[in-house]
Amino acid sequence: MAKVLTCRKEDYAQWYNDLVIKADMAENSVVRGCMIIKPYGYAIWEKIQSELDKMFKATGHSNAYFPLFIPKSFFSKEANHVEGFAKECAVVTHYRLKNDPEGKGVIVDPEAKLEEELIIRPTSETIIWNTYKNWIQSYRDLPILINQWANVVRWEMRPRLFLRTTEFLWQEGHTAHATREEAVDETLKMVDLYARFAEEFMAMPVIKGTKTEFERFAGAIDTYAIEALMQDGKALQSGTSHFLGQNFARAFDVKFLDKTGKLDLVWATSWGVSTRLMGALIMAHSDDNGLILPPRLAPIQVVIVPIYKGSGQLKDIGNTARKIRKDLEYRNISVKYDDRDIYKPGWKFAEYELKGVPVRIAIGPRDIENLTVEVARRDTLEKVTIPQDKITDHIQNLLTEIQENIYNRALNFREKNTHYINDYEEFKDLMEKNGGFVLAHWDGTSETELKIKDETKATIRCIPLDSPEEEGKCIYSGKPSKKRVLFAKAY
Amino acid sequence: MAKVLTCRKEDYAQWYNDLVIKADMAENSVVRGCMIIKPYGYAIWEKIQSELDKMFKATGHSNAYFPLFIPKSFFSKEANHVEGFAKECAVVTHYRLKNDPEGKGVIVDPEAKLEEELIIRPTSETIIWNTYKNWIQSYRDLPILINQWANVVRWEMRPRLFLRTTEFLWQEGHTAHATREEAVDETLKMVDLYARFAEEFMAMPVIKGTKTEFERFAGAIDTYAIEALMQDGKALQSGTSHFLGQNFARAFDVKFLDKTGKLDLVWATSWGVSTRLMGALIMAHSDDNGLILPPRLAPIQVVIVPIYKGSGQLKDIGNTARKIRKDLEYRNISVKYDDRDIYKPGWKFAEYELKGVPVRIAIGPRDIENLTVEVARRDTLEKVTIPQDKITDHIQNLLTEIQENIYNRALNFREKNTHYINDYEEFKDLMEKNGGFVLAHWDGTSETELKIKDETKATIRCIPLDSPEEEGKCIYSGKPSKKRVLFAKAY
Repeated sequence: MAKVLTCRKEDYAQWYNDLVIKADMAENSVVRGCMIIKPYGYAIWEKIQSELDKMFKATGHSNAYFPLFIPKSFFSKEANHVEGFAKECAVVTHYRLKNDPEGKGVIVDPEAKLEEELIIRPTSETIIWNTYKNWIQSYRDLPILINQWANVVRWEMRPRLFLRTTEFLWQEGHTAHATREEAVDETLKMVDLYARFAEEFMAMPVIKGTKTEFERFAGAIDTYAIEALMQDGKALQSGTSHFLGQNFARAFDVKFLDKTGKLDLVWATSWGVSTRLMGALIMAHSDDNGLILPPRLAPIQVVIVPIYKGSGQLKDIGNTARKIRKDLEYRNISVKYDDRDIYKPGWKFAEYELKGVPVRIAIGPRDIENLTVEVARRDTLEKVTIPQDKITDHIQNLLTEIQENIYNRALNFREKNTHYINDYEEFKDLMEKNGGFVLAHWDGTSETELKIKDETKATIRCIPLDSPEEEGKCIYSGKPSKKRVLFAKAY
Repeated sequence: MAKVLTCRKEDYAQWYNDLVIKADMAENSVVRGCMIIKPYGYAIWEKIQSELDKMFKATGHSNAYFPLFIPKSFFSKEANHVEGFAKECAVVTHYRLKNDPEGKGVIVDPEAKLEEELIIRPTSETIIWNTYKNWIQSYRDLPILINQWANVVRWEMRPRLFLRTTEFLWQEGHTAHATREEAVDETLKMVDLYARFAEEFMAMPVIKGTKTEFERFAGAIDTYAIEALMQDGKALQSGTSHFLGQNFARAFDVKFLDKTGKLDLVWATSWGVSTRLMGALIMAHSDDNGLILPPRLAPIQVVIVPIYKGSGQLKDIGNTARKIRKDLEYRNISVKYDDRDIYKPGWKFAEYELKGVPVRIAIGPRDIENLTVEVARRDTLEKVTIPQDKITDHIQNLLTEIQENIYNRALNFREKNTHYINDYEEFKDLMEKNGGFVLAHWDGTSETELKIKDETKATIRCIPLDSPEEEGKCIYSGKPSKKRVLFAKAY
């Protein structure tokens, strides 16, 4: 059967793009940089949303909604913030169209020009802190623990489906606290939550750490991130949690009376993950046959395909299939029985492989005779024959096993591709050839960081939280260093 | 205790605004016309979303996501459509800010002007049908049954929280069909679904009908709507479902090969409800003490308030409260135990009345002695004392009873305020004084419809689907009519 995807070894970027399109996850729209998330892709995103939302609520957060538009003047109130985002802002200048007096369709009505331009949110710190100002008077009003699910726009010159798009979907948490300590705890709590989500649901091991000054969020004191290694040896930043200190409270004059009656600025955090996670999910596990989805995020966990000739066989197989589906659904396993007669079994096998359905059950006339079914797992492509009366337990265990297996596979891959390097030539050589994670010493300066980036394209992904104290010398400058940091080329 | 809300009789519009703000549902943002949906309001919207989403999926629809931006040229392809929306479009003209060379903060970078302006979607027919063009070749690709949850922007000169805002949240379904009949069926199915949702979840009776040509959606052949009567005698359109015929397929050249091999234009529907439903929900049931929420959409269904002196009493009451909460939660009833010591019980009672929590349980030291609790229902404000060992069943039944009671109350109100009128003077008089629904004969012309609107502010809300054939004379022109239509002043 003809391969529908470019092989990873041949052209990884093309393989990724093929996969996103052929598995019906997303496509480019006519509006440059904006994507259309198709039903199958969106169903995966809904699973991600649903699980994260439960985790946010279980940790005391509530959802709310703030405006899409931010007045230009707000945006400028925090100097680093505007510096970081100004170059990628979509700007609304008018609020009306009218018929062209020269008869050439509709034109922008020059009389409907806004006094102050509106920016489409690239992130919502400014509009939210301007709102919090009215919500916070005393320590009794704190903490505020709010999350928002929304679309944001950051103009993108080199768009790639899910990984970098001008408009993307995300969640952004914005919390307000009475003390620095509480805000730092919240920042850490959320990066931990993201790491747990990535590992337990996406089956994707991640490294938690802080960003260097250069890579920090515009307006943050500290940025924590989770970093995952993709199959092409590049890192993908999959979630960030920012300790904003009192920067936004200062910019928007948000003060509160503490328990002793003293007026102080409020402490802030923000944290977010986006549809970029879809890109991470795709790249972490999939192969040349298509998507491999972790069972916990798969919209369809099990597909049943009948193999038959004639309606008599189909009827018997259908009865068995529906019985199995019912038993599985009773255990909250999502099942699709695909008895469409316009497609052949072989076509369906390839289709569900492409779409990453974790388990496929095939039932043919001999299975009906023998009271068996054939079970194929997507991660290893192995097939086994299972007695029908054992199928429910078997599938339930298999889904757990697949979830664990793809996590372990990704972890092994990362371990194999993580290198402790002390020599810059070796470092350059590695970055040029295989990529991967490199733990190396760094002198702590942006100067060195940027030189390494210029020469190798590798950046400091993070300073890992669990990196042990260790005396060493900067791989580039030879100056003293007390800790290894994580380098990689990145998406 | 001082009333926090303006009375409905005094100033209904002010009462509504007070209620939205004081019950912490939403507030105006600095961006004119845009609202901030606060956590309590958003929690109600999440309930609405969740129930509707289940209903959409149960009827075969999937979610997807299309871009926020629509190229101006697309927007103009369907003549009626652009005519209907051009006056309220937000327009993006630039994609970058830069530092003002004169040092006055940031300005829009004149070099980052878009070649073609982008419209922020006021609705997505155009971008979606431009996409469907690539998805549809043959009858095998049909039907397409897609829904999108999204924000949209329609510039609003006289904004009101939830009822009319420049940015609002909604869902928009967009379906594509091989036959006119199938598309008409879908249109009707969705207006029925909306009516069922309004009645079963919002406890709000609605009248289903078709819109007149004048009130129809811009680009539709037929618009079906559900109309509800608010307590001030005005109607609120709460959901619409449009049969779009082949208009958008024609505009975007979307054709398919039918089973006989003939090329034909695709048939379309679209349907939507928005955060406007929040306004309907608030106005349908609430009173001068605050919100009254139907139990099926209340984020908190039961609140437990301890009445105590000292920590000894609180401990005993707390044990009982937690036991009750656990038993109720086991039956999927959402419960909040509010033992905050910074507020007095009286304050809490007023607060939860304001927020419309359907049932309040108060537990005092005497209740601990007598093994009872006090149960108050929000809809009637009645209180009863109930033995603790009967509380779970009692609450479960009570929630059902409240849901039914507020539906019946709204239905009685509507029946009392629905008038069959044959005389125009009487019609004018009624519209001036009490408002309400009026069923009257109409000659079927836009001319008459507009004259009645000019003279009385009443519009034809819909031609009810269940309006019987009946010979009569137009209330305005005296010309023959075969059916009564529904008039009201409207939001």
